[in-house]
Parts: sequence; C-alpha cells; structure tokens
Amino acid sequence: MITSTSNPQVKQLQLLQKKAKERELQDVFVVEGVKMYREAPKDRLVHTYVSESFLRKNPSVFEGVEPLTELSDRVFESVSDTKTPQGVLCLVRRCHHTLRVLLEEYREDSVSGSMAGTATIGQPSAVRAPLILILENLQDPGNLGTILRTAEGAGVTGVLLSRDCVDIYNPKVIRSTMGSVYRVPFCYSQDWRGDLDRLKRQGVRLYAAHLKGEKYYDGISYREPSAFLIGNESRGLTEETAAMADAYIRIPMCGQVESLNAAVAASILMYEANRQRRD
Amino acid sequence: MITSTSNPQVKQLQLLQKKAKERELQDVFVVEGVKMYREAPKDRLVHTYVSESFLRKNPSVFEGVEPLTELSDRVFESVSDTKTPQGVLCLVRRCHHTLRVLLEEYREDSVSGSMAGTATIGQPSAVRAPLILILENLQDPGNLGTILRTAEGAGVTGVLLSRDCVDIYNPKVIRSTMGSVYRVPFCYSQDWRGDLDRLKRQGVRLYAAHLKGEKYYDGISYREPSAFLIGNESRGLTEETAAMADAYIRIPMCGQVESLNAAVAASILMYEANRQRRD
Repeated sequence: MITSTSNPQVKQLQLLQKKAKERELQDVFVVEGVKMYREAPKDRLVHTYVSESFLRKNPSVFEGVEPLTELSDRVFESVSDTKTPQGVLCLVRRCHHTLRVLLEEYREDSVSGSMAGTATIGQPSAVRAPLILILENLQDPGNLGTILRTAEGAGVTGVLLSRDCVDIYNPKVIRSTMGSVYRVPFCYSQDWRGDLDRLKRQGVRLYAAHLKGEKYYDGISYREPSAFLIGNESRGLTEETAAMADAYIRIPMCGQVESLNAAVAASILMYEANRQRRD
Repeated sequence: MITSTSNPQVKQLQLLQKKAKERELQDVFVVEGVKMYREAPKDRLVHTYVSESFLRKNPSVFEGVEPLTELSDRVFESVSDTKTPQGVLCLVRRCHHTLRVLLEEYREDSVSGSMAGTATIGQPSAVRAPLILILENLQDPGNLGTILRTAEGAGVTGVLLSRDCVDIYNPKVIRSTMGSVYRVPFCYSQDWRGDLDRLKRQGVRLYAAHLKGEKYYDGISYREPSAFLIGNESRGLTEETAAMADAYIRIPMCGQVESLNAAVAASILMYEANRQRRD
C-alpha cells in the first residue's frame, strides 16, 4: 500500500489528472468511480488504483485484477479530482480513431450488441447512415462531456473535434460523459478544412447551427449521411468553417433568447435526427 | 468610492452572493456583467455597483443611474462571483409569481412584443396553451440556469419548482440563464401535491420523463395545456410525484446510455412541444 503523497506513482497520477500533455505523452487517461471502472473496456485497462477503505469494503470486486495498487485514503484523496472520491480510479489506454471510422456505416450491434454478447452470425444488423457531430473550438468541459453522452444516446456514429477544443480526456469531460467516452468514436482533426472536405466528398451533408440559418432545423431531412457543425460557446462557428456548410439551420427561439447553450443546441439537433431516423 | 473590503455595504454584497437566506430576507438578488445589467427590468433595479476602471472606460453608460456606487477594482473583485469580473453588478428585486401566472394563457407580446414596444392595440396577439416545466429537487445550478434559458427559447409559459430545488437566485444559476431569469415566470411551490393537483384540475396534462415510460416523447401531442415533470439529476422523480403524472414518456436511447443530463432531457422535451406547436 502506498502511504506517501511523494511516491513517484502518486506524483504521476496527479500529473495525469492535470496535464493534457502528460496524458498525450503516456497515451492514457484517468477515470474515476465505480461506474467508470466497471464500464472500462478490459483490453484498454492499464492500471487500477483503489483506496484502503474501499478495498476493505469490496474485496471481491478486485479479485484477480492486476495491476492493482492500494493507496491509503489520504493518498487516494490527493490523486482524486472529485471532492468525495468513491475510492477507485484507473488508467485507461486512449483510443486512436481516424476520420474513416466516423464514416463507416453504423451497425446497431457494434455499439450495444457486441458488448452485451447478443450479436448473432447470420442475423443482419441494423445499418444506419453516418450521423456525425463536428465540434469547433468547444471550451467548456461539462458541455463536451454532456454532448458525448447525448451523442451516444441519439445514435451519433462519430464526433470530429477541432484541435483547439478542450481535451476530451480532461477529468471533468470524462465525468460528464457517464461512460460514453469509451464508446462514441471520436477524433481530433489534424487537417480541419481537409477533413470537412473529405466528409463532403463522401456524401455527408454538413449542417451549420447558425443564427443566420434560413431554415428551421426540423425542416430538413437527416436520413441521409449528415453532420452537424457546432461552434464555440460564445463566438459560434468561425466564418471559414460556416462557409463550408451545405446549409445553415436555425433553432427558433421565443422571447429575447439570442442563443442556446452549445450542449443543448447540439442535443436538440441530434435528437431531431434520431426522431426522423426512427420514423 | 468604496476602497475597503470591510465596508458594511461590501460585507452585505458578499453575503447576498453566498447566502440564499440573506437574498430571501432582503428580497433581492445580485446579477453581474454588462448584458445582465442592460437587461435588468428598470422597475426592479435596486442598486448598481461599478468598478473604478469600468466607470472610467464607460462613464456615459451610467449617466443618471442611481443609486450608483463606485468600488475600487480590488473591492469589486472581492464582491464578484466570477474569476474575471466585467466591472458592473447590481441588486435586482425578486419576483413573486403564483401558480396562477403559470396558468395564464401565453401571449406572444407579453414576452417580446411589449418589451420591444411592438404590441399594437386592436391587433390580436398570438395565444398559446400553457406549457409548463415542473422541476423536482433539481440540484445543479448550471442545469437549472440552462433549463431556464432553453425554456424561454422554447416558449415555455412558466416553471414550477419544488422547495428543495437549488436556489434560482444562486449566482451560478443567474449566470447560466443569460437573462432568462428576468423573463420566464417561475415559482417555488409551497404545496407540491396541491399545486400538481391544481394544474391537473385546470386541464394541464402532466408528462413525467421516466425511464419506465411506455411511450416515446414524440408520440404524444403537446398542443393542449401540457407540463413536463423533470426529476433530480441522479435519482429522477420521486415515486409520489411520478404517480401524479397522466403519462410516462421516454426519450429513446441508443448504445449503453442509461439516462440523459437533466437539462438536455428537459430541452429535448420542450423543443418537441415547440416543434409541434409551430406546425
């Protein structure tokens, strides 16, 4: 059991919680809590850390788990990003998707079926056209996490992020994804204009949520391959990005509301696509 | 100009930022920033405070404004709830709506028309059936603020809150409403079961967002007087409250998502009602 906060492993964990650069270098991220531990893909689980009192209460949970390191409660608190830590955290290997994955046709079993072990050979799986979310310069960790959570729920096939978005492995983002960070394919674009162009050439229509939108968001069909462009919380999309859209769409607003929260706007759009695709 | 943080007015402002009890006693709340100051209803503006450097840069903004008190930048920072204060905050009188207001038919001009001065006598105003949001034990200030902002945008006619919800005048809630706190009629219920019963007797159908919902949320018409029941972020609605609903509705979720963020779920429901009412 580690009982000192100056232990090198402890120092390392603290760095991984705080620094995006360090997470990138080590190619891992930290997840906290029982739910996030349970849902972590086993083939990507690198190391599990448990607090002394949590291990004492739940010894059977960690039978056979390795590598497993026990930390004194005080040390565990020093590496936790939450005020009232549950007592378990782990390092998970990061995922490296490319734009191609976001473009693959979505098979229902690739998300829930295969993990629940219900995919049956010979039984055709439901195939859906790509439904992509494109995020430009999103800055609020809570917003990004919430968007990922809703994206999984709405059946989004992938998320493309501009390089200046907040780090998706930031502990606050991870927490608000409620596990969706493991399951929704995403990638940071290394060539923004090029990637948007590639999506368009593959037949994906790009819809910009924009205050200048001429059409209401629910006046368009998203049954074909579609992507929603969502911009920064206060400035919206850059002009260059908005100019690449096939159409501007608008969420109508009553009263004196000038814009909606970015996660709310994205959610309304994703669920409109979900609604249409269920019809 | 006040230059000392031990000035009684300064102490008072700090208390009002932190304590719901104090806001209740004094019947005011604090708003910060230029946008919130500009949008504050003039008849409810109690006192304006401005930082030395903001006043120097924008003297004309505050001509004729009173009571107006100047604070040194250091003192202003000590009363601000934000990390980078804009330099203006004010005390606004609280509003006291009753359930009756939430039930009044919504006239388009009562929100935007009358404030923009475009309501014309003799011209019938658009009248809509009540669309009410009922929040039970909502705890996250950001969620509540975001819900109020979206509610105004979606044309919700009023919000009913259970007494154990987070204080709507909490600075974080105020900030995330982006001004909607001035405009969306709301009230805290002093008699929860009684108020829900009164709504039902007035012909409002209560829809509970519930994981056990048999019907998808978009399979129901919200053109008639309707209300959405939204529960606590982690526990959802209490059984007693859910039991009072006329129907359980469900937002379908793909993947392994068990629930959506409360503000996201509320937004999807409110905008589905908005969509139907525009048809």
